[in-house]
Amino acid sequence: MYSVCVRDHIMIAHSFAGEAFGPARQLHGATYVVDVEFRRAQLDDDGLVVDIALASQALREVLAPLNYRNLDLLPEFSARNTTTEFLAKVVFDRLASAARDGRLGASAAGLTSLRVILHESHVAWASFEAELAAR
Amino acid sequence: MYSVCVRDHIMIAHSFAGEAFGPARQLHGATYVVDVEFRRAQLDDDGLVVDIALASQALREVLAPLNYRNLDLLPEFSARNTTTEFLAKVVFDRLASAARDGRLGASAAGLTSLRVILHESHVAWASFEAELAAR
Amino acid sequence: MYSVCVRDHIMIAHSFAGEAFGPARQLHGATYVVDVEFRRAQLDDDGLVVDIALASQALREVLAPLNYRNLDLLPEFSARNTTTEFLAKVVFDRLASAARDGRLGASAAGLTSLRVILHESHVAWASFEAELAAR
Amino acid sequence: MYSVCVRDHIMIAHSFAGEAFGPARQLHGATYVVDVEFRRAQLDDDGLVVDIALASQALREVLAPLNYRNLDLLPEFSARNTTTEFLAKVVFDRLASAARDGRLGASAAGLTSLRVILHESHVAWASFEAELAAR
Amino acid sequence: MYSVCVRDHIMIAHSFAGEAFGPARQLHGATYVVDVEFRRAQLDDDGLVVDIALASQALREVLAPLNYRNLDLLPEFSARNTTTEFLAKVVFDRLASAARDGRLGASAAGLTSLRVILHESHVAWASFEAELAAR
Amino acid sequence: MYSVCVRDHIMIAHSFAGEAFGPARQLHGATYVVDVEFRRAQLDDDGLVVDIALASQALREVLAPLNYRNLDLLPEFSARNTTTEFLAKVVFDRLASAARDGRLGASAAGLTSLRVILHESHVAWASFEAELAAR
Repeated sequence: MYSVCVRDHIMIAHSFAGEAFGPARQLHGATYVVDVEFRRAQLDDDGLVVDIALASQALREVLAPLNYRNLDLLPEFSARNTTTEFLAKVVFDRLASAARDGRLGASAAGLTSLRVILHESHVAWASFEAELAAR
Repeated sequence: MYSVCVRDHIMIAHSFAGEAFGPARQLHGATYVVDVEFRRAQLDDDGLVVDIALASQALREVLAPLNYRNLDLLPEFSARNTTTEFLAKVVFDRLASAARDGRLGASAAGLTSLRVILHESHVAWASFEAELAAR
Repeated sequence: MYSVCVRDHIMIAHSFAGEAFGPARQLHGATYVVDVEFRRAQLDDDGLVVDIALASQALREVLAPLNYRNLDLLPEFSARNTTTEFLAKVVFDRLASAARDGRLGASAAGLTSLRVILHESHVAWASFEAELAAR
Repeated sequence: MYSVCVRDHIMIAHSFAGEAFGPARQLHGATYVVDVEFRRAQLDDDGLVVDIALASQALREVLAPLNYRNLDLLPEFSARNTTTEFLAKVVFDRLASAARDGRLGASAAGLTSLRVILHESHVAWASFEAELAAR
Repeated sequence: MYSVCVRDHIMIAHSFAGEAFGPARQLHGATYVVDVEFRRAQLDDDGLVVDIALASQALREVLAPLNYRNLDLLPEFSARNTTTEFLAKVVFDRLASAARDGRLGASAAGLTSLRVILHESHVAWASFEAELAAR
Repeated sequence: MYSVCVRDHIMIAHSFAGEAFGPARQLHGATYVVDVEFRRAQLDDDGLVVDIALASQALREVLAPLNYRNLDLLPEFSARNTTTEFLAKVVFDRLASAARDGRLGASAAGLTSLRVILHESHVAWASFEAELAAR
């Protein structure tokens, strides 16, 4: 199994609902350093897992609507806790969609799975990974 | 699959027995930077893999009896080489026990596996991972 | 010159005023991984720059009123841009005060300067450093 | 499952063929920081996944013919794009061969899989992992 | 003293002349992860050391003519060893020029010094730092 | 001012005397990841701060007598607390001596200062820096 990983980051505000969150129920924020790992069993004709320029651009486009935002105000997250693990799945879903729509290039049809990791500090991170449905 | 990872560290002394260890047969020591990755298939009702405050506290409690100790003197390790990979399993077993005992909270029943990584320097680390037995 | 550095972190929300800030004028947030470097010319009688337990505790106390907060709502920052470099000075001033008040222990009288670094992502950080006034 | 990982690095020149590569079609170069993760289900009699001294030495020997070289001139890579993911497999194959030949020691017969990661910058890496054929 | 640091990277090929260089006399390459630290005594009216967007853009422009190139072929480096420390000064000189030319914004007139660090691997880096001549 | 930095590491056991040390009065240990920064105002004729191969070798030789040792048993440290900051000065003194003795090569006469940093965990480090006496 081959992997390629690219990194970017976002800076967001949000708050949480629920006793488990303690002081994090207050409006606060986070820098998420975002790693996306693309996986496939065989390299494409260029010797690549994915066109890294297209992958980086797709990641930037997926992150842009979240960057410099208060996530509490985004309708798609209403009544949801935008925990680090929840956001990892959000990024996964949007990148999987980008792959299906051809925004990662034709050869991205060979990708079999993705893993998205969000680093929230030097002592904590969360991730979501899954297979990609066949196109 | 979702993951959340938390980090802590310990500073221990120990020595090894066996030709393979060369100068490490002498009493020496290590800082282990310890990462624990908690995994589950679905988030709990709060949108969490695990209550990160409880997870961090459980990790600290598991590491405390090892921290600032000469492992050669601990009865539970007598006649064992406390290699980095061996210690990764020790931390795994004790955290798995903490999860079973409810010390990670009720929702931790949904955890399916753990991975424990011990970084011993900028050029070497070891890990142990396994499924968690159903409670 | 000797130095000792300890690390902690905070997660805050804020927004900026001014054309230079572009999308960062929106309410967003950041994780700041905070390094504080303590400096002195001679070690104390214990062979220390500073008691690292007291230093870590003082840093946590200094960071606590900022952690999990929307800095836009804190009176002491009203009408100020809480940029990373500005916050580095805030942390510096509060730690310098802690040193003067004896919260770093008696031997901290020998400290000559501090440097505070706030890492805001994997690609940017800011710092403030200065001499400590003699007690 | 247990793992042990060791790290080394190489500095190489190369160029790529194909429209996808843009400016990377020019002769340029890279530092690859190379992590190799060795995996097995049970520790050996010494409590080890692999003799770390032998593993580090085998990695150095595998990397030596690539280090400080222009990969475009190496016959074994003629007409191939030596992408990061391609090179991860090259290192994998040569280390798997070293394991089969006994260069990792007798106990390395218990290794079940390897993962090779090449970090090419602070924002990108690639890897190859696979089972090891039984000796 | 305040600092702000931004990071980018380049991937280059080159070779060295001189007995001291051993195998590095062969054509090889490197990834340089480039940190630039901007320093000043007082923040500007926005609470900034430098406009981070302009600083990042200036760094990218300074690095572009070096990125994906064989430095042995660039006329400005003919008969020079493009060591990591030499290149740190090249980047310094070009950024100092950008600051003088106003490409970092009007407020950059307050900058007093720069430090440029080039990380060439996980075990080695080089830097150049100096005062900036008053505009 | 130019700098070049090289990295290595040691794994040691020790204990401390004094109330300030709490549980660290017990025999424990540490991995120290050691960075040494060499500084000079002008590059040598090869375009170097220091011959990096000689510098790395000198660092390894300086660290060897400490590596895999219980520092409490080394006569030169009897009745001393081998704190991280104290050890940074020990490494400094031995490397300064190596420079004076010509073990860093003839051109090392141009070095003006050294900084030695010992990283003891992901949250703490200590350093010592000073001018080098003219040879």
